[in-house]
Amino acid sequence: MLQAALKAGTAERRSVFEVFTRRLPEGRRYGVVAGTGRVLDAVENFRFDADVLGFLREGGIVDDETLDWLASYRFSGDIWGYPEGEVYFPGSPIMRVEGSFAECVLLETVILSILNHDSAIAAAASRMSSAAGERPLIEMGARRTHELAAVAAARAAYVGGFTTTSDLAAGFRYGIPTVGTSAHAFTLLHDHERDAFQAQVNSLGRGTTLLVDTYDVTEAVRTAVEVAGPELGAVRIDSGDLLLVAYRVRQQLDELGATDTRIIVTSDLDEYAIASLAAAPVDAYGVGTQLVTGSGHPTCSMVYKLVARAESADLKAPLVPVAKKSSGGKTSIGGRKWAARRLDEYGIAEAEVVGTGAVPGELVDRQLLVELVKAGEVVAREPLDVVRDRHAAARANLPLSATQLSRGEPVIPTEYVHGRSGS
Amino acid sequence: MLQAALKAGTAERRSVFEVFTRRLPEGRRYGVVAGTGRVLDAVENFRFDADVLGFLREGGIVDDETLDWLASYRFSGDIWGYPEGEVYFPGSPIMRVEGSFAECVLLETVILSILNHDSAIAAAASRMSSAAGERPLIEMGARRTHELAAVAAARAAYVGGFTTTSDLAAGFRYGIPTVGTSAHAFTLLHDHERDAFQAQVNSLGRGTTLLVDTYDVTEAVRTAVEVAGPELGAVRIDSGDLLLVAYRVRQQLDELGATDTRIIVTSDLDEYAIASLAAAPVDAYGVGTQLVTGSGHPTCSMVYKLVARAESADLKAPLVPVAKKSSGGKTSIGGRKWAARRLDEYGIAEAEVVGTGAVPGELVDRQLLVELVKAGEVVAREPLDVVRDRHAAARANLPLSATQLSRGEPVIPTEYVHGRSGS
Repeated sequence: MLQAALKAGTAERRSVFEVFTRRLPEGRRYGVVAGTGRVLDAVENFRFDADVLGFLREGGIVDDETLDWLASYRFSGDIWGYPEGEVYFPGSPIMRVEGSFAECVLLETVILSILNHDSAIAAAASRMSSAAGERPLIEMGARRTHELAAVAAARAAYVGGFTTTSDLAAGFRYGIPTVGTSAHAFTLLHDHERDAFQAQVNSLGRGTTLLVDTYDVTEAVRTAVEVAGPELGAVRIDSGDLLLVAYRVRQQLDELGATDTRIIVTSDLDEYAIASLAAAPVDAYGVGTQLVTGSGHPTCSMVYKLVARAESADLKAPLVPVAKKSSGGKTSIGGRKWAARRLDEYGIAEAEVVGTGAVPGELVDRQLLVELVKAGEVVAREPLDVVRDRHAAARANLPLSATQLSRGEPVIPTEYVHGRSGS
Repeated sequence: MLQAALKAGTAERRSVFEVFTRRLPEGRRYGVVAGTGRVLDAVENFRFDADVLGFLREGGIVDDETLDWLASYRFSGDIWGYPEGEVYFPGSPIMRVEGSFAECVLLETVILSILNHDSAIAAAASRMSSAAGERPLIEMGARRTHELAAVAAARAAYVGGFTTTSDLAAGFRYGIPTVGTSAHAFTLLHDHERDAFQAQVNSLGRGTTLLVDTYDVTEAVRTAVEVAGPELGAVRIDSGDLLLVAYRVRQQLDELGATDTRIIVTSDLDEYAIASLAAAPVDAYGVGTQLVTGSGHPTCSMVYKLVARAESADLKAPLVPVAKKSSGGKTSIGGRKWAARRLDEYGIAEAEVVGTGAVPGELVDRQLLVELVKAGEVVAREPLDVVRDRHAAARANLPLSATQLSRGEPVIPTEYVHGRSGS
């Protein structure tokens, strides 16, 4: 596309691309924007080095004119978008990329990859954190997904409300608080379970978390308290009927005087399993597989579509709305869009309003898109805790039914407003 | 675990870890081992640099003794495994890692991440390539998964039988053949569809693939042949009822004399959609979302378990089989295992035989595990085409029902043989 547009003289036409999704994953009531911060890093670093240019040249993949153009590539346009952590709905213009066709079209894959992945994980995390209430959630899914997707997943989980991660690489890269527990292998390494517990307490102190389901849970809990005393930090249960076992272990710990020892459960948890343990004496949840695979929805169907373009690079040339029009679905609405969230009299969201042209006066202060990149420079970096807090606030401002786990429709409708001026 | 074992003096105990899965994803008839080559790269490069050690030190995550140990970390043990591309079944010891507890336990996450991800994609790819028969499959899923998971997914798809990828980074990294098509944005960029087609043909020649469903398919096909002539390489259809549209487009192309122009279909294809198009005049399939998300099963449930350990680092100390034993599932079989595939009189697989101790004489030549790493050195690098061919051969050696798309049981049973000697 790039090569053909360069040759045809259309590559420099001023263009507007938008990221949106036509629908939420089936049954989901809201989406969560995540990955924006990673997109900003990726756009800033998007370059073609000598090795890559050599590959493109030797494979005959693009012509010399295109190679020259790629060698000096640097995105110089503007990006606006929903701030990271915000919720979104079908049709929400989650990100808007403006510049020449050529510089914008090259970013499609990296922008969609990041947003589709991270938003899928954050949406699952958000549901799990609703289900967990005040109890902490530990991200433990690194083994279940691609080794670097795992690091991004830990970040997205934190945005969605998780408390900590067991992925040290995510702690290193993003400053997310890390925790660790021991595995069955550590117990099996030692001659007796007691030796393993003693080794762990000797090294990590009485506040550590002991894994108690390698052999017999009741015996392990007794041994654990004998070794660590009632100051034992926590026990972890990783198999069996978690509801039943948690009650028994709580009773046993209390009888042994370890009333402050916490119970951490792990074992293929998802938001439904977490909710089903709400009444159980559980103090924290560790979640792996179902988190990093988006709890049934590992991607978000976000697309990156050209919605308007001018006939030249001239900023004064009018933008012409464009859209795919063939039958068979996949149509979209042309024109550069704004978005705002309309609130009811109690301050709760009642509609996602998406439009072209002028923003109605009553929605001017409710606009969702913020400036992220200006003339190629990132202008909106922010700490991950700000993003995490924003998500919690955005979710709290949705109608209560947003956090129902059952399948349903988007919790607020998307309304379209077509303005007269398309500029 | 590492810190506690170092302090307890158990870190150096000779240990055997195995990777296996307790079950296949629901309804699947075989699994595909993929990612082995990436595991070898990861093991070879597994180091702790100054930045990472600084993070671990400043966060108080491990003590000084552990930091010193990590600073000089280099895996020096042995790894055996199923060769990449082989099929596997529940209980197959897909990989076996031997060395000190400390050096082996550190590799759990990276090994499982790679194998769980890549094998999930390869399994989906294998089913799709069965469904596609002789027709080529193009991997087009980069936008639907994490930006680097996408590159690994393209590799795994190629192992599973895909022909090409649209992910240039996968071509650069792994030498997988790349192809590209244009998007609706390219058509929309131009004033008229004809201008877009002309621009593409001018740049890429008549053999290019034109996207014909931006406006009206019938008009687009007419325009495409007018612009490129009957030498037009292919048209791509990305929406609508693909079966119906493919027939109409074929008829129209033939009437226009473009009898050699191929038809490529894309649009949320999975193995079932591919199979349903078997009788349609389709020449190639492009697959995205369903491929990179494992067609409903984005991970494989592979685990990494300590199955045997000695009481010291001494190679002569006997290995003691170990296994988790508590109730509630997740039990496993202790002991270092071999595996072999028993064939029937026609040379077709009839059982996956997994055992400890001596290998029965009739299975000695049918053993599945090969040496991958010897005393820390990778000894089994191989070209990706060898892996791809191995998968095709392994699949062809399964009973015919392996390639049925319907849900079912593993196509051959796993049998366990317990030998007397556990060494």
